[in-house]
Amino acid sequence: MELAHGAGGRATAQLVRELFRAAWSNPVLDTEDDAALVDLPPGRVVFSTDGHVVSPLEFPGGDIGRLAVNGTVNDVAMLGARPLWLSVGLILEEGLPLAVLARVVASVAEAAREAGVAVATGDTKVVERGKGDGLFLTTTGLGVVPPGRTPPSGRSARPGDVLLLSGPVGDHGAAVLSVREGLAFDGPIRSDTRPLGGLVEAMYAAASPHVLRDPTRGGLATALNEIAHQSGVGLTVDEAQVAVRAPVAALAELLGLDPLYLANEGQLVAACAPADAPALLAAMRAHPDGREATAIGHVEAEPGVRLATRFGGRRPLRWLAADPLPRIC
Amino acid sequence: MELAHGAGGRATAQLVRELFRAAWSNPVLDTEDDAALVDLPPGRVVFSTDGHVVSPLEFPGGDIGRLAVNGTVNDVAMLGARPLWLSVGLILEEGLPLAVLARVVASVAEAAREAGVAVATGDTKVVERGKGDGLFLTTTGLGVVPPGRTPPSGRSARPGDVLLLSGPVGDHGAAVLSVREGLAFDGPIRSDTRPLGGLVEAMYAAASPHVLRDPTRGGLATALNEIAHQSGVGLTVDEAQVAVRAPVAALAELLGLDPLYLANEGQLVAACAPADAPALLAAMRAHPDGREATAIGHVEAEPGVRLATRFGGRRPLRWLAADPLPRIC
Repeated sequence: MELAHGAGGRATAQLVRELFRAAWSNPVLDTEDDAALVDLPPGRVVFSTDGHVVSPLEFPGGDIGRLAVNGTVNDVAMLGARPLWLSVGLILEEGLPLAVLARVVASVAEAAREAGVAVATGDTKVVERGKGDGLFLTTTGLGVVPPGRTPPSGRSARPGDVLLLSGPVGDHGAAVLSVREGLAFDGPIRSDTRPLGGLVEAMYAAASPHVLRDPTRGGLATALNEIAHQSGVGLTVDEAQVAVRAPVAALAELLGLDPLYLANEGQLVAACAPADAPALLAAMRAHPDGREATAIGHVEAEPGVRLATRFGGRRPLRWLAADPLPRIC
Repeated sequence: MELAHGAGGRATAQLVRELFRAAWSNPVLDTEDDAALVDLPPGRVVFSTDGHVVSPLEFPGGDIGRLAVNGTVNDVAMLGARPLWLSVGLILEEGLPLAVLARVVASVAEAAREAGVAVATGDTKVVERGKGDGLFLTTTGLGVVPPGRTPPSGRSARPGDVLLLSGPVGDHGAAVLSVREGLAFDGPIRSDTRPLGGLVEAMYAAASPHVLRDPTRGGLATALNEIAHQSGVGLTVDEAQVAVRAPVAALAELLGLDPLYLANEGQLVAACAPADAPALLAAMRAHPDGREATAIGHVEAEPGVRLATRFGGRRPLRWLAADPLPRIC
């Protein structure tokens, strides 16, 4: 990658045409205007953005391209919307091998197809060697809440609600960390990066959750603290119901980390009315992305997030204070 | 700025609350969900993204925050849409002074107010010292084309169309370059960064242009080549009608640069039917952001972009091949 690729001239046009447009082609992107004109179905619009700076760029189970697409469509889906369009903003470092960029571009294309979205528009900048770190990728997603659906929100948890979790936690954080630290436990730990729109639609076919949240950076513990803070409620979580895969638990123990603070990129936590919990849990378990779903706890009036431990004790589950895992996404 | 500010835990939440939410507060942003729920007026939706890596972060006439907001709302306006919402993705380098970030955040707020848009959602990441360059800012804009308006496109130029330019070229590129090179010519050269939505609306009140394009990276010459390429036409531009301010011309001459390739952040070029040109030009000149508008040339069937020089000659105006100005926006 050379600085000229980001200068807006012939080299930029060539890069866009031969690499990006070839991989992501669709009638909206192909207009070659600086903006995209999209026709959205009726419904309220959901709009979300995420910068991705994960290091390394490639890890077991995914890469920065797949992570960015899934992370963004998931944020859109967490407001009950169907993701439809993406924008992709690349900040490349001079000297980035074209082969790496090409793999990430292919990965964005594949992940977008899997998630049922398309790239509507994009932008590329190049910075000098030593002023970036290979590739940063900022994706923005656009989706629409189907008419008649009340969008869930982190502010909508109510005392008495049941907390549901789609599957085991910590896979993504552990996968990135295991590569960075050069550790392996009976084969690689794979990131759980995946699009959650299908699971969300399956849930809505059963009942309407009050809250949906994907516990990414900061892990499940942070997502729960955010929900408690936004809704002005407290949460109690039953540790025994939160699954952690054995190699993830082993890696976390070795490094002195709590898996509840490790990032996930393919799980969601939901809060719902107690009467809806059985149907929602059954719907989640019937979907490939929620087979290991469990009810993990309850919403209460008393503020704070508490963990009921396997040993019968209770301890506060606090906000993440330090940074055990920089650049996890 | 510390790595913990990007880790998604308490430090991130504090930064978001005390800095971003305080400056950009509005009911959509204030929900604190990972995505934004927006209600758009009827009409086709326009969606555009731009990464900003300008160096230095602050320059005469603006900074990276103002540049990002204006650049993005302008891309939305160039498809005939009214910009409404923004997302802001920040990639910060560890060690960035909080005071610099606070100034950029304030600048985003001010520019958004001026452009009539609001920040709907955002994201912050922090990379280690030496892996970024202070601050990169990726903004995505969302706007709506008023019902009944045919969106302009770079593909809609037709032989016979008249080319209009809103004002003198090269101010932004020259402003950034003058700071980088430590040059001054009778006072600083100021960037022309400004939102163009008002000018576009004033133009539509008079007539419908076929093409609107803001000649940013790569300058007017690049924008004209893009339009010629997209529409499969040729363009001839009368050099004498393209204004360049004296200090910009002096700086360009000193550095051996052609002002037609210097970036603009507050100008637009339009193509329109010959019958509409007088009304559009009058509307532009009646608007504060188009007072110096001129008709600069014509669209022709013969491919290529040509400059009719002040001396009566003709020379091709090619795509920018090299990169005289990396990180201009």
